[in-house]
Amino acid sequence: MSNIDLYTVVEGGSITTPKGFTSGGLHCGLKKTERNDLGVIVCEVPATAAAVYTTNIFQAAPLKVTRESLVNGTLRAIIVNSGNANACTGEQGEQDAYEMRAEAARYLGVAESDVAVASTGVIGELLKMDRVRSGIAGLPEKLNGGASGADDFCQAILTTDLIKKECCVKVLVGGEEVTIAGAAKGSGMIHPNMATMLGFMTTDAVIAAEDLHSLLRAATNVTFNMITVDGDTSTNDMLVTMASGLAGNETLTRFHPDWAAFAAAFTHVCQSLAKAIARDGEGATHLIEVQVNGAVDDDAAAAIAKTVVGSSLVKSAIFGADANWGRIIAAVGRAGVPVSPDRVDISLGDIEVLLQSRPVAFDEEKALVYLQKSETVLITVDLHDGSGTATAWGCDLTYDYVRINAAYRT
Amino acid sequence: MSNIDLYTVVEGGSITTPKGFTSGGLHCGLKKTERNDLGVIVCEVPATAAAVYTTNIFQAAPLKVTRESLVNGTLRAIIVNSGNANACTGEQGEQDAYEMRAEAARYLGVAESDVAVASTGVIGELLKMDRVRSGIAGLPEKLNGGASGADDFCQAILTTDLIKKECCVKVLVGGEEVTIAGAAKGSGMIHPNMATMLGFMTTDAVIAAEDLHSLLRAATNVTFNMITVDGDTSTNDMLVTMASGLAGNETLTRFHPDWAAFAAAFTHVCQSLAKAIARDGEGATHLIEVQVNGAVDDDAAAAIAKTVVGSSLVKSAIFGADANWGRIIAAVGRAGVPVSPDRVDISLGDIEVLLQSRPVAFDEEKALVYLQKSETVLITVDLHDGSGTATAWGCDLTYDYVRINAAYRT
Repeated sequence: MSNIDLYTVVEGGSITTPKGFTSGGLHCGLKKTERNDLGVIVCEVPATAAAVYTTNIFQAAPLKVTRESLVNGTLRAIIVNSGNANACTGEQGEQDAYEMRAEAARYLGVAESDVAVASTGVIGELLKMDRVRSGIAGLPEKLNGGASGADDFCQAILTTDLIKKECCVKVLVGGEEVTIAGAAKGSGMIHPNMATMLGFMTTDAVIAAEDLHSLLRAATNVTFNMITVDGDTSTNDMLVTMASGLAGNETLTRFHPDWAAFAAAFTHVCQSLAKAIARDGEGATHLIEVQVNGAVDDDAAAAIAKTVVGSSLVKSAIFGADANWGRIIAAVGRAGVPVSPDRVDISLGDIEVLLQSRPVAFDEEKALVYLQKSETVLITVDLHDGSGTATAWGCDLTYDYVRINAAYRT
Repeated sequence: MSNIDLYTVVEGGSITTPKGFTSGGLHCGLKKTERNDLGVIVCEVPATAAAVYTTNIFQAAPLKVTRESLVNGTLRAIIVNSGNANACTGEQGEQDAYEMRAEAARYLGVAESDVAVASTGVIGELLKMDRVRSGIAGLPEKLNGGASGADDFCQAILTTDLIKKECCVKVLVGGEEVTIAGAAKGSGMIHPNMATMLGFMTTDAVIAAEDLHSLLRAATNVTFNMITVDGDTSTNDMLVTMASGLAGNETLTRFHPDWAAFAAAFTHVCQSLAKAIARDGEGATHLIEVQVNGAVDDDAAAAIAKTVVGSSLVKSAIFGADANWGRIIAAVGRAGVPVSPDRVDISLGDIEVLLQSRPVAFDEEKALVYLQKSETVLITVDLHDGSGTATAWGCDLTYDYVRINAAYRT
């Protein structure tokens, strides 16, 4: 984001920082270890809400229920479990998702149609509903608007993730301070086309529902939809946002003079969470950022950036600190979009390795150090074909990715 | 192949078994170890020839030269090196490919326009032409029509492959015995869209050039184009076939009564080589075969089969002997083609794990034994949407894939 002057990152902020939100989480017994596996976010007023969902044909039961709750455009709460995706579970799975919604509504004292449901974990197993029920009953006393409530929630949505993912920013809208925050989980089966994971955003902005929805879609396209861990699109992905309206700002629409600042702040939260998911990809040791410039258009740039960042060979080479640009250009060439083959530039960090599609004699030792020492490896591809640009994020392919996924279910 | 009665597999047969062919190989110094890295196949008469090439936009220099040689539809020889792909090497790379062709033509006493050139190995480095030149000069004395010539050639085309890949079959055409053979190499950057590797086929059939070409394309689509190791399509893939015509059969065209038998035999060779490449995928411990039935059409079935066999999560699960069908159905759902979500059956071997999109209670111990003990893991997906079918082949994702590709270039 070059728009950092339009908004301010709130260090230590969380999903309960925007006015009107509380959250909580606990261990109800869906995960084998004692980690949290059930969480909730609650808004004290009906929040303007919007969501985007996975494009996978097989959509998990909670997505159906959440879509129904979103019909009226408002939410009061989101109930989430980890450890079980409630996907490919048939009619019983749907009944279970509806019951999760009903139980959460009952214990929180809100309407069922104002509760969204999300699940993540193993596919094809029925939820242990006795544990879910007793867990939901215990959630109200865990709810708070402080750091512990947000932390309990963030821990409750993790599966193979190593670290919780949060971001919070402030932005002025018509002179009023508006806060936007988000929490998300990864970290395998990550190849969005829509949100590739579970993501939850809160804001206290007063904002028109349709503009919130279009902003959510636009921000998702350049952030969550631009990350890949393993090329697999999950059955459960969703990103839900709630706006409490308690900041008291003039109603935001795309015609408001501060819309650009709000949109930049909102997109910053999405991008921060998306990058955190990629960095915490299963087994990852590096975040990989691929910037494509000079494509025929932005869509072509996006296709190329995602193909490069998703290439198993590129990912393995980064793990091995190997400046193997041949794999990068091979990925560019199979992205399925037009590229002039004779004028491609490629850099690793600030080290030029290919110029006009010809190898550059570069300092191998410097490249090795860059690849070994950099937390984020930046690959820049310039095609000189037009003005299309895109950035995608991913992670390296490591022994631990294989270890984690060879033994996930067992 | 259910047509095995139409032809006979020749045990111990090789690319020099069809009449008119000799081959050879040697170590000229492109590989760091003493393994062969330069090989040649020669036909004693002008052979009817056809080829298919990678769809990658960045095509290596040898492909340009080979395309030119194929314009007249005949070949006398194919010169191949491993250890260096001669890709992304600019004008010098093209000159080097032309020089390889010219030197091979000179030492073999044939026209330059009758020589094809192929390279495989690292991208972006210039060929050490002094070594290539002296190697070509030494090739004629290595040429023979026996097993050692074929073996020397097969060894010369390997890179990270562990084993050589050969197949030979015989078929009767109008009462005359016709032989078809092939050799190929894998084993990373394997996700064809066209031939995903180097493949060389010889036959002594008398066959019309256009029918040879259309058969080559058709056979490639259901064999080499249905394998994936890592989803990466190489810059160098090509499959070249030469027909000496020395079997003396009536000229084969698609209207010949024995065309079906010849096509089945030809396709058998392609499928055998393709499966051998998948099985010898970098680090692989299992061949994975995915059969999709009941898709809306064959193209949809092919898209689904390739998506499943290419899924990193499915590949990791097979490595871990985990009957994780949730990953299989998630891959089916993201293949980008229409699927009815409520009537999918999935089996592992003969163990049903999903029926009408609902989990089946199966014997986990039996599934574990099947996945651990089977050289080939068969995944069957039935969609009940139509009559489209396809089969794809791949391999599991292992620690060794990461190890090999984290340290390939260095």
